[in-house]
Amino acid sequence: MIKHRSQNETLIEVTVIGKDRKGVVAEITNAIFSRGGNIQQISQNVVRGLFGMQLEATFNEIDKKVLDESLLHLSRKLNMEIKIHYQESNRSKNIAVLVSKEEHCLQKILEARKNREIYANLSVIIGTDFTFVQMAKNAGIPYRVVANSKSQEETEARILKLIEEFNIDLIVLARYMRVLSPNFVWRYPNRIINIHPSLLPAFPGAYAYVQAFEKGAKIVGCTAHFITDELDQGPIICQDAFDVLPSDTLESIKSKGRELEAKTLLKAIKLYLEDKLEVYWGRVQIRA
Amino acid sequence: MIKHRSQNETLIEVTVIGKDRKGVVAEITNAIFSRGGNIQQISQNVVRGLFGMQLEATFNEIDKKVLDESLLHLSRKLNMEIKIHYQESNRSKNIAVLVSKEEHCLQKILEARKNREIYANLSVIIGTDFTFVQMAKNAGIPYRVVANSKSQEETEARILKLIEEFNIDLIVLARYMRVLSPNFVWRYPNRIINIHPSLLPAFPGAYAYVQAFEKGAKIVGCTAHFITDELDQGPIICQDAFDVLPSDTLESIKSKGRELEAKTLLKAIKLYLEDKLEVYWGRVQIRA
Amino acid sequence: MIKHRSQNETLIEVTVIGKDRKGVVAEITNAIFSRGGNIQQISQNVVRGLFGMQLEATFNEIDKKVLDESLLHLSRKLNMEIKIHYQESNRSKNIAVLVSKEEHCLQKILEARKNREIYANLSVIIGTDFTFVQMAKNAGIPYRVVANSKSQEETEARILKLIEEFNIDLIVLARYMRVLSPNFVWRYPNRIINIHPSLLPAFPGAYAYVQAFEKGAKIVGCTAHFITDELDQGPIICQDAFDVLPSDTLESIKSKGRELEAKTLLKAIKLYLEDKLEVYWGRVQIRA
Amino acid sequence: MIKHRSQNETLIEVTVIGKDRKGVVAEITNAIFSRGGNIQQISQNVVRGLFGMQLEATFNEIDKKVLDESLLHLSRKLNMEIKIHYQESNRSKNIAVLVSKEEHCLQKILEARKNREIYANLSVIIGTDFTFVQMAKNAGIPYRVVANSKSQEETEARILKLIEEFNIDLIVLARYMRVLSPNFVWRYPNRIINIHPSLLPAFPGAYAYVQAFEKGAKIVGCTAHFITDELDQGPIICQDAFDVLPSDTLESIKSKGRELEAKTLLKAIKLYLEDKLEVYWGRVQIRA
Repeated sequence: MIKHRSQNETLIEVTVIGKDRKGVVAEITNAIFSRGGNIQQISQNVVRGLFGMQLEATFNEIDKKVLDESLLHLSRKLNMEIKIHYQESNRSKNIAVLVSKEEHCLQKILEARKNREIYANLSVIIGTDFTFVQMAKNAGIPYRVVANSKSQEETEARILKLIEEFNIDLIVLARYMRVLSPNFVWRYPNRIINIHPSLLPAFPGAYAYVQAFEKGAKIVGCTAHFITDELDQGPIICQDAFDVLPSDTLESIKSKGRELEAKTLLKAIKLYLEDKLEVYWGRVQIRA
Repeated sequence: MIKHRSQNETLIEVTVIGKDRKGVVAEITNAIFSRGGNIQQISQNVVRGLFGMQLEATFNEIDKKVLDESLLHLSRKLNMEIKIHYQESNRSKNIAVLVSKEEHCLQKILEARKNREIYANLSVIIGTDFTFVQMAKNAGIPYRVVANSKSQEETEARILKLIEEFNIDLIVLARYMRVLSPNFVWRYPNRIINIHPSLLPAFPGAYAYVQAFEKGAKIVGCTAHFITDELDQGPIICQDAFDVLPSDTLESIKSKGRELEAKTLLKAIKLYLEDKLEVYWGRVQIRA
Repeated sequence: MIKHRSQNETLIEVTVIGKDRKGVVAEITNAIFSRGGNIQQISQNVVRGLFGMQLEATFNEIDKKVLDESLLHLSRKLNMEIKIHYQESNRSKNIAVLVSKEEHCLQKILEARKNREIYANLSVIIGTDFTFVQMAKNAGIPYRVVANSKSQEETEARILKLIEEFNIDLIVLARYMRVLSPNFVWRYPNRIINIHPSLLPAFPGAYAYVQAFEKGAKIVGCTAHFITDELDQGPIICQDAFDVLPSDTLESIKSKGRELEAKTLLKAIKLYLEDKLEVYWGRVQIRA
Repeated sequence: MIKHRSQNETLIEVTVIGKDRKGVVAEITNAIFSRGGNIQQISQNVVRGLFGMQLEATFNEIDKKVLDESLLHLSRKLNMEIKIHYQESNRSKNIAVLVSKEEHCLQKILEARKNREIYANLSVIIGTDFTFVQMAKNAGIPYRVVANSKSQEETEARILKLIEEFNIDLIVLARYMRVLSPNFVWRYPNRIINIHPSLLPAFPGAYAYVQAFEKGAKIVGCTAHFITDELDQGPIICQDAFDVLPSDTLESIKSKGRELEAKTLLKAIKLYLEDKLEVYWGRVQIRA
């Protein structure tokens, strides 16, 4: 949801994913240019033979049908997956929440929804097991389990299918404890929000509180950030922190941390839904 | 010197450097596109407020005069430095060699020139002090000293001026012991070759042999690589190595290493001059 | 197997593991000192509340019974696990080989045993599944499966029990694909040998060949090293390498790499069995 | 200033520095044992051939004269520098402040002294140039300049001499912008306090605010910590932080940061002087 457009411009985001081969950048950019688009930002990457490209373009006038057909044609010709995401600010957004075993973040989101603090559709909750099936049922939200798949690839394919099926705008990782591959992440630039239990870039990885405690950090916090293909390195949306007291134990730090995680993640979701987040060269700027 | 072109295509490289501001990517890409160019690769980066963009484009037919004027116009409008580099494979290349205190690499290059192993003009030697003034004189090559400048910025400005003055194609860092800033490096994508005394990515930084020795590495080597804005991380051109013997000391390792550095750097220069290096997504492929 | 002793000295290694508490270092060192020991090297560490200490001491005269009782007493008093390892160079060593799915290293070791290249007892093969049950049977070596345990802790407890049961001197990780915890590693300082598919410290972690290939490394190799509590950072025993050719693919690199891994691991095992490895401040010195 | 002693124990700290050679640990520990000492903590390290050892021991009864002579004898025999530091809590502490170009931290310390907030002797201010000569004069504190030395080694030798001359207990780095070598740092374990402009371990190195700003950190802070031989990795004493507002610029962040640095450094100095800091396995615990 990156925007830097004047009044009458339309912003589109295009993602391209497929087997690496030369000439792809030229084909895609030419298609955009020849339909009247101005390319605002491009990033390309190749990881383990997989090519991914994200492109933002603005149009003064846009013929969606023509553009869609043009890129569909290219998609077939190049044998690559090409998706266009149009900004449609009128309709309310669809959110998918991904969870593993910890409930505090999911619970906070469900409460906020109940209290009408967030204006969006909580379309689906996707879990790695059945832990939250009842909680989802009580809230009247579809619950899908994607774990027990043989491979990460398969698990992610199932999630991707659900994201399509529910026409999801925003993916929230509410203590979802698996790393998402570039093949997943590249498809949703700046539309996957994660909560990490440290003040990133300090203490990335799986043992943030333990490491902060053993390192003797005197301020501990958490970070809501967009996901990129670099683990725990994506654009920071918001951070909150608390002082570690001499009397604190690892357990008391974890407990305070969890409470803060839920608040901070919710804050980030609200900023997103209020359309206040602009990502520019890897940095989030919060609009007034 | 990145090329992936069919017979009749012309490849150009464009570098853009200036104060970061929105809309630059669109302006530049539109200019290329509207003159018939196909964009093959783009990278953009912002470091400490400085914006840098490198772009490669191919043209079936190219009107250099029109393109030059078009980008000159843009340069003034955007207040950014824009340079086009045309591939001219006919004329012999101009090389600048940058040195500090160690002589082994420079000496090897001068010998290779004397023995007509390399077909290129050694246009200028740029040193951080007067150490090699006589060696350059003996070889009949202009020698310029750029050190003692008050700041890195000033030193680099002086080198940049010399690079322009001597119309340099290839910059060789022959144990030049200073880090070059993005402002410098971005101007010469894949045209600055460095020799680093380790098998990168192992042991980056200033103490490679000492670290390898203290770590007890059993194989030690060196790496010739293109320079990028990430220190000691650029595309690897060639690497050579030797076994560490139980009898080796730090001094004997350094001595063997220096000999290898000179050979490996020369090998990389030759590959460059023979037009055998293709950089694709940060990886050097060596053409047969 | 760290030794730096004169003719008539006895070297012992003591490992202490338990819940961190003050005063432990004093208790242990006093016990050594008061039995006539000279402390040659001590390292202590605390990871996630677990305290580990390794100590080497030499004795001109040693009364093993008294020392054993003394440390057994301390072990009970402090509620910590204390083990003494006496150098007994006369009897032939007992080896445990840990494996996962890849066979090339195990196979090489079994061949070397068959060809009487190594003089040691291959006491047990420990696998994460049943893949090599038949291969072990054919070789007449006990095979134990430790996978499918609920937790890393439980898996390691089962391995530790087997190590005790078979009175193992040397643990060989022959492409064992799990990370061992400090609780495991601290018990066998310089007695666990791993083979890693890169020239460490380059490319640690699980994707060494892929990373080397994508980075465009021109020399690829492997490293046999002792395991410490820092992943892929332990003392380097031996390294071997090969040149990457322009025609090499990721698959051909992996294939060449696997062959080299087997050779290099075997070389390290032989050096160990021949008593030629001395570890001194994290660096392996190979005795003539 | 590490203490974990019962009522009547005396704690001493011993530092040993010299050319690496075997047997040193045994010699030193035996000397301690045989004089009645209990070894509480030992760390040893070798960096570039230099051996450093820090040892803490407690004594129920201590004969300082005998111990001093015993270690002096050892020092000559081993040709190593050995220093004993006795805890003398009665006399007021001597502080040396090291500075470069920035004044805010020094100023804060001078104010605190003037306002009698800290009870200690500000014995000497050591600068890399003459910037603060007048400020020191006004405060009536000796000022020494150590810069312009040819080498880091020489500069540090001059500082070490001043530390001896003024019988310094605590060294405060008040934005001293040079890295201290292990040879310096090992001599004063837990007695050199630095202020770093980030919430360590995030953003170590020389560009902390710039990096935090460019990374889009939403919470920025600073860290007072003891110096060890690992740059910006030593035990954390205290940390303070502030929220980055959408309106903040790099300059406003630096400005707020500097104010906080001064406060946080002063807080750390006070905790030290009040004898409230205990370092245990690399972690500072603050006593009530």
